[in-house]
Amino acid sequence: MEAIMFTPRAIGHVRGPYKETKDVPKGLGAKQDAEGVIEILPTFEPGLMDIEGFSHLFVIWMFDRSEGFELTARPPSDNRPHGVFATRSPRRPNPMGLSVVELLRRDGPRLHVRGIDMLDGTPVLDIKPYLSSVPQETLRRGWLAEAEARAGK
Amino acid sequence: MEAIMFTPRAIGHVRGPYKETKDVPKGLGAKQDAEGVIEILPTFEPGLMDIEGFSHLFVIWMFDRSEGFELTARPPSDNRPHGVFATRSPRRPNPMGLSVVELLRRDGPRLHVRGIDMLDGTPVLDIKPYLSSVPQETLRRGWLAEAEARAGK
Repeated sequence: MEAIMFTPRAIGHVRGPYKETKDVPKGLGAKQDAEGVIEILPTFEPGLMDIEGFSHLFVIWMFDRSEGFELTARPPSDNRPHGVFATRSPRRPNPMGLSVVELLRRDGPRLHVRGIDMLDGTPVLDIKPYLSSVPQETLRRGWLAEAEARAGK
Repeated sequence: MEAIMFTPRAIGHVRGPYKETKDVPKGLGAKQDAEGVIEILPTFEPGLMDIEGFSHLFVIWMFDRSEGFELTARPPSDNRPHGVFATRSPRRPNPMGLSVVELLRRDGPRLHVRGIDMLDGTPVLDIKPYLSSVPQETLRRGWLAEAEARAGK
């Protein structure tokens, strides 16, 4: 059984400070607090109604400057390979990224946000409200926690 | 500027208790604690290496039984319309869903999880590790909090 797939379309684009992959803070302890704008295309602006009531949003976007994929990845925060689905590697079977951003304010089709970790110009595919959190103390973070422990972080 | 898009492909499928949309708990106070399996296609199984170290996962999937989209949606938890990007409506410009599931155990290509809110047979597009939470007390939840307040929940 193979479902008929859809053709993704950009609903907007990221405007932010990172022009190249090397500009994005990566690795253990990297802080993602860059501010930027998610600029929604005019056609889709009515889809933003009431979004300003949410403090945080999920943004699904496309790794448009990544090519192909590998099933194991060596993340910048570790020197060991891990399965791509246990990492945030850009080289994924479906080249999609997911970011949690804080919504600072909305200015028409422009969402001013904190937590930009995508490149400037990145196509945005979807935005969803962030409704609830898994309590931090119940999270297990596998290889990442081990890499942090080895690094003494 | 229009990026060249990718053609999404299923990396696996959801096996769960919900056969039709009406079976999925919805609306205010709905609990998503159904257990099920995310069955990864054999080709992609190496991508799961080390995933068992994570307690929670993000799952990006396709609303394969939804057609078309509307820019405003009337969610089951409210009687007022909201912008589609401020809701989890299935009728989105890119018909993708996002769920946070708890990983109970891995059995080869089968991830046994809690928190299934997709239909049985749903194509899975991506899995990512859940690394950190926004503290619940810092979240604002807009129209949803207002609807809860009106309903006395």
